[in-house]
Amino acid sequence: NNCSSYSWAQVLLLADMYGTIQSPNFPESYPKDNELQWNVTVPSGYTIRLYFMHFDIEPSYLCEYDYVKVSCFEARTSFCGRENTDTERVPADDVILSPGSMLSVAFRSDFSNEERHSGFEAHYSAVDIDECRGKNDEELACDHFCHNYIGGYYCSCRYGYQLHSDNRTCKVECSDSVYTERSGLITSSDFPKPYPKSSDCVYRIEVEEGFLVTLDFEDSFDIEDHPEVPCPYDYIKIEAGARVFGPFCGDRPPDRIQTLSNSVSIRFHSDNSGENLGWKLTYASAGNSPQVLHSH
Amino acid sequence: NNCSSYSWAQVLLLADMYGTIQSPNFPESYPKDNELQWNVTVPSGYTIRLYFMHFDIEPSYLCEYDYVKVSCFEARTSFCGRENTDTERVPADDVILSPGSMLSVAFRSDFSNEERHSGFEAHYSAVDIDECRGKNDEELACDHFCHNYIGGYYCSCRYGYQLHSDNRTCKVECSDSVYTERSGLITSSDFPKPYPKSSDCVYRIEVEEGFLVTLDFEDSFDIEDHPEVPCPYDYIKIEAGARVFGPFCGDRPPDRIQTLSNSVSIRFHSDNSGENLGWKLTYASAGNSPQVLHSH
Repeated sequence: NNCSSYSWAQVLLLADMYGTIQSPNFPESYPKDNELQWNVTVPSGYTIRLYFMHFDIEPSYLCEYDYVKVSCFEARTSFCGRENTDTERVPADDVILSPGSMLSVAFRSDFSNEERHSGFEAHYSAVDIDECRGKNDEELACDHFCHNYIGGYYCSCRYGYQLHSDNRTCKVECSDSVYTERSGLITSSDFPKPYPKSSDCVYRIEVEEGFLVTLDFEDSFDIEDHPEVPCPYDYIKIEAGARVFGPFCGDRPPDRIQTLSNSVSIRFHSDNSGENLGWKLTYASAGNSPQVLHSH
Repeated sequence: NNCSSYSWAQVLLLADMYGTIQSPNFPESYPKDNELQWNVTVPSGYTIRLYFMHFDIEPSYLCEYDYVKVSCFEARTSFCGRENTDTERVPADDVILSPGSMLSVAFRSDFSNEERHSGFEAHYSAVDIDECRGKNDEELACDHFCHNYIGGYYCSCRYGYQLHSDNRTCKVECSDSVYTERSGLITSSDFPKPYPKSSDCVYRIEVEEGFLVTLDFEDSFDIEDHPEVPCPYDYIKIEAGARVFGPFCGDRPPDRIQTLSNSVSIRFHSDNSGENLGWKLTYASAGNSPQVLHSH
């Protein structure tokens, strides 16, 4: 690709955070028959800014004899001459920004030098990447808040959320609730706003023995699903004694669930992506048959 | 001054390039009767950016009971409450930039806490100072070109100049010229543009023995001077055998100089500041009396 470096004999590796690149013998005129390459690398989290302060390379048609090339810059434009012409180009005041953390500058002079040319002087420096800026929603670095610093970034969460071990998504603690009333209302966290990512919630309903819990999901139901695989990402699953209902996902709620138990666990799992609106259910409990109650 | 740090008992020193500052027990409510201070320092070449992502401190009139203060920020505004009121302030979306490479955050809670308050979470990071930007002419970091990099900067010079050992000003090599013609024209470098700083130039006139050199400065004469001290900064001084003329400076040229010598050195010294336009002279040489010539 355009960003591959060259493979000339003489390669100089530059790993500092800034520096100067000069043609051989600068500011004296450069020697003929010379091939030289500078490979600049900076740590990840940075790009490289390169610009020329002096440029005087023997001009030739399309810069085929003497030239300077910068990898990754507009498909490796060859630079030569002292000013832009119809067929040749100089870097002038261009500031070249590397797409990644590497950049190569190659210089070549051919066997002849009709006149003496003073060559070039370029300066480079590492530039911090602001990882928090300029990404579209799907690529956002952080689920909630993104904090850039020089050389990297980190994520944090809104108050009430905790950073998941993926260091990117924000989960909630949502397994402490036990519902002991005979009827009630349960929703996913933040309902009807999108539910938190990377979370495992357990909502327990514990009513008196002898009562049987019924669950009714509302129509507003939205859990991330997949067109072919059943509920591979997010799902709700209901455990009632030995019975398991679900997993459920998608945009249509399950029908009324007769759990036939007084102790029900509603488990809700979300993965690290997606913006789905969650669910809301009402539960009710009805007494079991008196015969069974009396048999105790 | 406003930027001095506090002197509370418990001080935490933070020397990383970024980090998080939280009230004690965050996200649980903060304890009463607490005084805590964070002193953030970054290397020179950086300032500190600080902002709050969560803020909930017990409100009180003018924040006299519980508060957060940031040194150097608008004469140490005290922050408290959960939102701005007529008399109390929260940091909200303010981004606080330290003037230097230090910043202090102080937190205080008094002996009582009527309600529980969750405290605060702030984030800070080192920010590179662009030393090349935003200075007026007199304070320019570099004489010619300024190159910022993360954590510092360096200077470079236009082609044909050399960086002085002060790493700031650009001098010229200007002592190679020997004038052997019987008459000629000599000017300061770059005349009539300002002459280079930090330079020591020697222009030698060597004509045949028996000829005596005369110097005539043009009216356009401008060498940095001082209202009281004679030529303390920049000056021109002429040596002809044992005779010395000058030093000269200011905006009026010296009168015609009869050097009475065939070998003359014109020394021109410039210091590291000032934008003065320099000087231009013509020299001529006339044959000495034949008697003297014959005595050889």
